[in-house]
Amino acid sequence: MTEFRRDPIIGQWVIVQADEPMKPADFNITARPPLGKATCQFCPGKEHFTPPEVDAIRDHGTRPNSAGWKVRVISNKFPALKIEGGIDLRRVGMNELSNGVGAHEVVIENTDHFKDFPDLSDEEVEAVISRYRSRVNDLTGDNRFKYIMVFRNYGEAAGASVEHPHSQIIALPMIPKYVLEELEGARDYYQKNHRCVFCDMMHQEESEGKQRVIGESSHFSAFCPFVSRYPFECWIMPKHHNSRFASLSSAEQTDLAKILKDTLRRLKGCFPAVSYNYYLHIAPVNSGDEAVWRDSFHWHIEIVPQLMQMSGFEWGTGFYVVRTSPEAAAEFLRKS
Amino acid sequence: MTEFRRDPIIGQWVIVQADEPMKPADFNITARPPLGKATCQFCPGKEHFTPPEVDAIRDHGTRPNSAGWKVRVISNKFPALKIEGGIDLRRVGMNELSNGVGAHEVVIENTDHFKDFPDLSDEEVEAVISRYRSRVNDLTGDNRFKYIMVFRNYGEAAGASVEHPHSQIIALPMIPKYVLEELEGARDYYQKNHRCVFCDMMHQEESEGKQRVIGESSHFSAFCPFVSRYPFECWIMPKHHNSRFASLSSAEQTDLAKILKDTLRRLKGCFPAVSYNYYLHIAPVNSGDEAVWRDSFHWHIEIVPQLMQMSGFEWGTGFYVVRTSPEAAAEFLRKS
Repeated sequence: MTEFRRDPIIGQWVIVQADEPMKPADFNITARPPLGKATCQFCPGKEHFTPPEVDAIRDHGTRPNSAGWKVRVISNKFPALKIEGGIDLRRVGMNELSNGVGAHEVVIENTDHFKDFPDLSDEEVEAVISRYRSRVNDLTGDNRFKYIMVFRNYGEAAGASVEHPHSQIIALPMIPKYVLEELEGARDYYQKNHRCVFCDMMHQEESEGKQRVIGESSHFSAFCPFVSRYPFECWIMPKHHNSRFASLSSAEQTDLAKILKDTLRRLKGCFPAVSYNYYLHIAPVNSGDEAVWRDSFHWHIEIVPQLMQMSGFEWGTGFYVVRTSPEAAAEFLRKS
Repeated sequence: MTEFRRDPIIGQWVIVQADEPMKPADFNITARPPLGKATCQFCPGKEHFTPPEVDAIRDHGTRPNSAGWKVRVISNKFPALKIEGGIDLRRVGMNELSNGVGAHEVVIENTDHFKDFPDLSDEEVEAVISRYRSRVNDLTGDNRFKYIMVFRNYGEAAGASVEHPHSQIIALPMIPKYVLEELEGARDYYQKNHRCVFCDMMHQEESEGKQRVIGESSHFSAFCPFVSRYPFECWIMPKHHNSRFASLSSAEQTDLAKILKDTLRRLKGCFPAVSYNYYLHIAPVNSGDEAVWRDSFHWHIEIVPQLMQMSGFEWGTGFYVVRTSPEAAAEFLRKS
């Protein structure tokens, strides 16, 4: 038995299997054998193979671009965008285009080639999050950029072309479509209801007995959204309204590291070979609309496990068929 | 060197590599060994394993659900939606949901387990298209349905869970998000310019020397859109304005079979092991807005080759990095 569910933010429908959920063992998840460290350019001692570092957490007294780092941020060697130059927006007939200006950075999260977040200490995960913040803050200072996207690809099926665990940061001169839809949906909801739609989502989770909640800490909640678009989709969201990731307090940062690590540990408990993506949806920067987003938007992390192949139906409709309901997925994750 | 390009219909940005395109040989495309016919339930002689057929092209005198068919349409054995019942739209707090009513059918395209469209005769491909039309026409008669999505998954990386070539048809009680965005974008463009945006796209292709055109026939054009979202994305579109796929003339149907087969042959010439999806974007049915869509919308087929893994950037932004420009892709396809 399936049901349609409609997302309260952007109005997207999904199809959810309401009974007889697909269990973790029903998914066919295999990973290729690891490539290993031999040719890895992100491992310690290979710093000279990468572009120079733009930020790092280092042992006292060690020099940039040498060993002694704990977290290392570098420019992407094969950037999707170039950092130099102005934005050259123009029209050719009905088409609009511009040169590819932006920043594309890589956060090498740890010296260990094989350790994913669940294998790191809480402090090591927090060190990565602290670099997300420092880079978002720094890139916000460049007013050519309107949006900063922090994301992570883990595993081959998630598009990770380098095996050594890393995150990426791309700064863009425009607000990307999916974020804009969420921003506009949240703004419209706020204008109508005078409340944040994300805060209301969390209240509804509470009023429905937290059946979709995976875990909680003082400052964050991890849950499978009522309108999950993918099986075992997980969101991590501040409990108190906050549009700006970069304004995290030190206690919140510590707390976020714990809940992010715990959520990924639970996911890998269900699917030991899982590939997954996550990305931060944060408020735009340098947009002139900060006051609007401050009240109506609520930053969060969306975790997308790669458990299924998208088919022509999803490509054509934007409409998913989710065979493990978020209620069932949260239960599997809580027990994991 | 990359550039940003913005889609004139839905306003989506993409990043396109403008120089040094990724060549077909640069993509790492492998297919698993075929599963074979032994356990296939779509092969002739196995008709009793499938749900009863709802439509077929058969040899004279043969009975439904027995051998003697050329194309066979059945209900999906594991449907995403159930055909019985009314639509039960309701709210629970901020969430909207409904029971999963709809149709989910499978078009078994040919008796041969191993033949993809490029391996079939033109007449065999046309027979498949004729069943798309007859099913769209039939399902349109059920006024619970507002949209009928015809799609095809070919190959493992395209989410084809059954190897025997087949298409699928899903009838939905609402217009799915991606289609609605295209419809609304086209309607807004029409209101502003008094012209169809898809017709204008084809005129612009002509005025720019058809550099993105893959092939043409009397009634159709196959091209890589200026704002391709995926490398080697191909669209097939009627040259003359038409919103309704089901109104194809017999000559147009013959012509469509030829250009669809030819485009897929070229794609497989570049990538012999490619998995791909395609889907039809056609006007909604039973919507009450037929007059709006008739003027502003233009049906077409979108072919999405599965050449890359989506990464967290695309999942989070809706924003793609296309390393083979559509100009380069069309040239590779024309020479293939």
